[in-house]
Formats: sequence, structure tokens, C-alpha cells
Amino acid sequence: MLPFARVAIVGLGLIGSSIARAIRVEMPTVAITGHDGDASVRERATAIGFCDDVTDTAGAAVTDADLVILCVPVGAVAGVAAEIAADLPADAIVSDVGSSKAGVLAALQAALPGRAVVPAHPVAGTEFSGPEAGFATLFKGRWCILTPPADADPAAVARVAAVWERLGAQVETMEARHHDLVLAVTSHVPHLIAYSIVGTASDLEEVTQSEVIKFSAGGFRDFTRIAASDPTMWRDVFLNNREAVLEVLQRLTEDVTMLQRAIRWGDGDALFDLFTRTRAIRRSIIEQGQDDARPDFGRAHE
Amino acid sequence: MLPFARVAIVGLGLIGSSIARAIRVEMPTVAITGHDGDASVRERATAIGFCDDVTDTAGAAVTDADLVILCVPVGAVAGVAAEIAADLPADAIVSDVGSSKAGVLAALQAALPGRAVVPAHPVAGTEFSGPEAGFATLFKGRWCILTPPADADPAAVARVAAVWERLGAQVETMEARHHDLVLAVTSHVPHLIAYSIVGTASDLEEVTQSEVIKFSAGGFRDFTRIAASDPTMWRDVFLNNREAVLEVLQRLTEDVTMLQRAIRWGDGDALFDLFTRTRAIRRSIIEQGQDDARPDFGRAHE
Repeated sequence: MLPFARVAIVGLGLIGSSIARAIRVEMPTVAITGHDGDASVRERATAIGFCDDVTDTAGAAVTDADLVILCVPVGAVAGVAAEIAADLPADAIVSDVGSSKAGVLAALQAALPGRAVVPAHPVAGTEFSGPEAGFATLFKGRWCILTPPADADPAAVARVAAVWERLGAQVETMEARHHDLVLAVTSHVPHLIAYSIVGTASDLEEVTQSEVIKFSAGGFRDFTRIAASDPTMWRDVFLNNREAVLEVLQRLTEDVTMLQRAIRWGDGDALFDLFTRTRAIRRSIIEQGQDDARPDFGRAHE
Repeated sequence: MLPFARVAIVGLGLIGSSIARAIRVEMPTVAITGHDGDASVRERATAIGFCDDVTDTAGAAVTDADLVILCVPVGAVAGVAAEIAADLPADAIVSDVGSSKAGVLAALQAALPGRAVVPAHPVAGTEFSGPEAGFATLFKGRWCILTPPADADPAAVARVAAVWERLGAQVETMEARHHDLVLAVTSHVPHLIAYSIVGTASDLEEVTQSEVIKFSAGGFRDFTRIAASDPTMWRDVFLNNREAVLEVLQRLTEDVTMLQRAIRWGDGDALFDLFTRTRAIRRSIIEQGQDDARPDFGRAHE
């Protein structure tokens, strides 16, 4: 039994195009309609061919759909929801893939009153963007978090969950505000720090940019991967998850200040204790299949 | 022409054992003597067999050597240098692999007055430790920085450089203090921040450790790799490169505070500008062969 027969995907970048490709592989009889606000992306998506049809407007993409997934930066969700409102079939379920959820849930409910809304966040991605960057296995073994409103129809939630499970993800449901705090820790603040440290390094007068690049294998290059992620998407995440990000950032700043003090005063034990504790977390992440156990991320050494 | 005939390696962990393995492959006629302060490491190194001989004391390892490489945490360099002083042949060159250099250079010169000292830092490694973790290709395509004293014999520097080139590294020479600032940016502060953010995440009351681990694919897991590095080695780095680390950390804190303010006041343009600028650095690192271009570090998506 397929959970849906006709899926519309609005936004054909890394995530939207990966969903389309994965549906093609896992549920080949499902009809896929796509739209993107950018004409060049529509053209490239048509050429690649992961949708049955790429439409010129968001409304045209959804007219026939029983599931609509908005795969646009979270700051664009309200606008796209308004664009599709008139064409949305009465029984269609609307979902999304945004990295912050409380604001998205509110925006969808405001733009689509009375409609079935089941926001989702697949915790998966790469540093690349655009329709060429997607691939069908992106969600395999990753988690997808659903944040339905308290009064959501459990059957609608179950159908959206079934889609993600078919694409290879494990599904967890939580309240939108809690999601936003969890992701502030596991994703948003790490991205902000990565962007920041790459910026700091490139601004130093005493160290040239060429030196930073040459000697990046000492650790810096690990940060540059997520600091190469899509700027629009990430700007919107920080503006939309302001409170949780600021809270976690405040705690991180306190902890860094503590380490700064330990270095200044030569307190080796405080450093050693933290450095020992953090190894256990890495071990658990690998045990639970959320990262690669190969040394150095399996980078080539030749 | 081999730059050296008999190499002694003191400290048989990730780096020491990788050097031994690489010499075996690239300069198979060179005799390799090894020592480690830890009896269990000596036993395991003997069993693996990457040295011709593993000795019970550091002195015994160096008696016959024309090159001695100390591969111990930087805080242990002074002690090991004192241990070998009496047995060191008059014409032997002493080098090391420490991640901070001004302190190491001073310690070596104090413990071994009048001897040829050419400190080195191969900018390469993985998050794993111990003699089992080493491999012969670790230094291929990476940089090795030499920080000889101002009055070093150019011939001695050239011979140490030749070893690293034979092992596949590119060699650069710089003043020890400048090295320490460059590495504070490209390695030490990134490690400190990674350790810190992993600690902060595991201390939050509202988010469980299990949630942090599950949803780590959103970015957090990238930080956990370098936060799994050897605790003793890293404690020593921070205690020995105090000034440069504190200076870079201060700048980073200012930059993070600026971003924090941009988020609080909804200044999307400031965020977008930084997030765009940082992509260029990633591109250069990949172009110069210092990181993998495959999405998501080439992690498996199955």
C-alpha cells in the first residue's frame, strides 16, 4: 500500500531533488510533480528528469497532489504556502523539510487554515546545493523528525511517516519547540561556529589566507565543509530559530570562557577531563550508525 | 642518496608508528630503532613489527642513530630530551613532530646544548591513537613545517626536509613563533571549539544525550571527529601554545558575538555575507588537495 499516489515537490534543490529521486527508486508508481521559483533550476530539473512534470507555477504543481512537500528555505515557506493555497486539493496533506519548525508550523497554519499540515525535518544533507546535488540514498539510515500540531489527524501523520520510512529514514515525532532546541545544539550552532571560525581565520593579518589553506589538515578543514552550505538556507534558519540558537550559543560561550581560563592559568586537568569525556560521544555516534568509523572520515591518503 | 641511515623514533603512537611504517616503504634500507615509555605500547609495537628493534630505554634507542625523532606529547619533550642526552651520538640530528614549536625548540636547546636540533611538525593525523592506528601513507600530500633555530646548519635542515619529502610531504620552513600562530588558527582553536561544543551539547538538561547522538548528522558529528583526538597530546598543545591560542580565541569570540548580535537583531544581510564568503575558502582547500571534494566527506549513504 502506497501512502500517497501523487506527490508535489516545491523547491528542487538538494533536498527536493533527493526526495524526487528517492521516490522514483522506492515507490516508482508515484506521480511526481515539481516546481521551483528559479527558472534556471526548473530547466535543469527538467533536463535531469527526476520529476514526471515540472510546472511553471507552484499552484500548477499541487492541483492534483495528495501530498505537497515544500523544500524551500524556511524564510520562503509562508510565501509559497500562500501561492498554493487556492490550488491545493481539499484532502491534500502539506509537509516541508525545514531545519527549524516552530516558525514553519505557525506560517503553514496561518497561510492554510483548516488544512492538514505535518511539518517534517529530514536530518540529512551535504554541503552542496541545487538539483544536480541530490541523490536517492541521501536519507538512508538518517532520522526524519515530524512536528505535527497537537490536534493533527494521527492518520495524516502516519502517512507522512510512511513516506520517510520508504525512503530509508527512521522517524521520530516531537513538539516543534523541542525540535528547535535539539537542532540548535546538533546543527544550527555547529554551523554558526563553523562559519564564524572560517571567517575569523580569513581575517587575521598575521596569517595569510594561503597559510590557512595549506595547513588546514590540522583540523580547520573539517569546519569548512559545513561552512560551505547554502547561505540563503542558513540565514533563514538563524533568523527563524533565534531564541534556541541564542540560548545554546550563550552556554557554549560560557564553556569556551571556562576553557580559556583553564589555558590561561595552566589548569591541565580541566582540559584533560573534558577531552576524555568527549571521546565517548563520538563512539556512540559511530555505534548508532550516524557517522563513519574510518579514520579521518575515510579521506584518501595518497 | 639516503639523508640518514639509522633513525631512532621515541614515542610509537599514531605519528611515530606512521613514520616508521613510511620509512619501511620509502627507504627500506634505513635501520629503525624505536622506544616508547609505555611497556604495553613497546610490546604491541614489537608484535606489529614496524621497527627493526624496540628498546627498553630511550637512551638505548638513540645510541647508534644519525636521526632521532621525538614523537611524544609536547609536554614530554623536555623529559625525553634529558633522558637521551648522555647516549646521543655527537653528530646525530634531533627532531620532533610536536604541534606547537616555540616551547619545544626552547626545551630541546636547553636539554641538548650545542646539538643539531631541527624541530618539525607534520600537519597530518587522524582521530585515532596508538601504534595500531599508524599507516605508511599518512603524510602523503600533507605539509610538514620545519622550525629550525636561526643559527641552524642549513645542511642539517636540508637532510630533515629530505626525509619528509621522501615520506610524501611538502616541506615549508618558518619561524617557531609564526608556526604557533598559524597552527593556533588552523588546528588548535578548531580542536578547542570542537571539544567545547561536544561538552556543551552533552551537558544540556533539556536535550538528552541520546537526542544529540541521533540527530548528529545535522552538523554536530563533523565536530566529534577531532574532539575524539588524544587527550594528553591536546592538553599539552594548549598549555604550550597558550598565547597564540588565547589571541585567536579572543578574535573568534568577538566574531561570534557579532553574529550573535546579527541574529538577535534580525540582520540577515550580515549573516548572508559571511556565509557566502566562507564557501570560497572551502573551494581553495579542495583545489589545493588538502581535502576531499566528495559530498559529506564521501560518507556512505546506504
